Amino acid sequence: MAHIEVNPALPGISALLEFRPETAQPLMGLAEVLLRGPSTLTRGERELIGAVVSRGNECVFCANSHAAIAAELLPGGFPLVDEVCQNWEDADITPKMKALLTIAMATRERGGAVTAADVETAKEAGASEIEIHDTVLIAAAFCMFNRYVDGLGAFSPEGREGYVPSAKRIVAEGYIRERSTVFP
Amino acid sequence: MAHIEVNPALPGISALLEFRPETAQPLMGLAEVLLRGPSTLTRGERELIGAVVSRGNECVFCANSHAAIAAELLPGGFPLVDEVCQNWEDADITPKMKALLTIAMATRERGGAVTAADVETAKEAGASEIEIHDTVLIAAAFCMFNRYVDGLGAFSPEGREGYVPSAKRIVAEGYIRERSTVFP
Repeated sequence: MAHIEVNPALPGISALLEFRPETAQPLMGLAEVLLRGPSTLTRGERELIGAVVSRGNECVFCANSHAAIAAELLPGGFPLVDEVCQNWEDADITPKMKALLTIAMATRERGGAVTAADVETAKEAGASEIEIHDTVLIAAAFCMFNRYVDGLGAFSPEGREGYVPSAKRIVAEGYIRERSTVFP
Repeated sequence: MAHIEVNPALPGISALLEFRPETAQPLMGLAEVLLRGPSTLTRGERELIGAVVSRGNECVFCANSHAAIAAELLPGGFPLVDEVCQNWEDADITPKMKALLTIAMATRERGGAVTAADVETAKEAGASEIEIHDTVLIAAAFCMFNRYVDGLGAFSPEGREGYVPSAKRIVAEGYIRERSTVFP
């Protein structure tokens, strides 16, 4: 049960967004521009960063939600997403994505853990300045979303099946929509 | 030196906001509604939560910035803010603020660290559901802002004097303004 009285029919962050629409607007605006706005990183790559960071933060709702979205978007589907979430250092992804995930996971730990060498490695692997910026901000934003969901004890369904319909809807429609149907 | 090529004349998050205006908009929109929007928590109380969390995350820029803003807003000024930042559990603040800071600092650690007992203590001390929600989200948002600033190695001036003019401007004008003068 959540720590505050939210709509029990809504899972995860959806219930919190409905509870406080004033903050829901910039929160979903941030997700929309970071994860779906114009970028040289694909939407699938950005969702994958969010899924890996959320798993690192042990946030069941966000990890499942964004793994399902990444699986919808990436040609490798759930097998690739699972491989990356379990052991991204040895996964079948580009050196650039590995270097960006290194930066993301350092950011997850604490900002000061990102080193100049991490950034140099990413640049040598072809990452642009904006890609490095966005990777840090995506990781930082998920450190917020994960704490928001779990700090308020929001309902987090187990299992992955329940997350697939929402993932399909977000891929089709995005993060900004009417409050009554907001999810995640 | 920052990890990406930003305007060296701008300190902390200001340079990052200028670098990526697309994400600056929802980020400052979130700060505005959370820290300055209508609330039964005063602006000073909300800035104090941000300062304490930023100090916990060892983010020099955010800790100094928001301590200076809190000192502008709270009757106790810097002496009170310093007391709370150094040892909030024994500081001269209300039991409700202590209970909310307990929740904020648990959120800072990780979302799952907030207990039902922490929330119950806050409610018994008079905290409303929305105040508890906002406390968790303020703490979570600073976990993002702190990682954003330090993860990109943004310039963080030492000493507190340099932060006072910006604090006065934010108190007067808020977080949303023209990009060229955005700070922090």
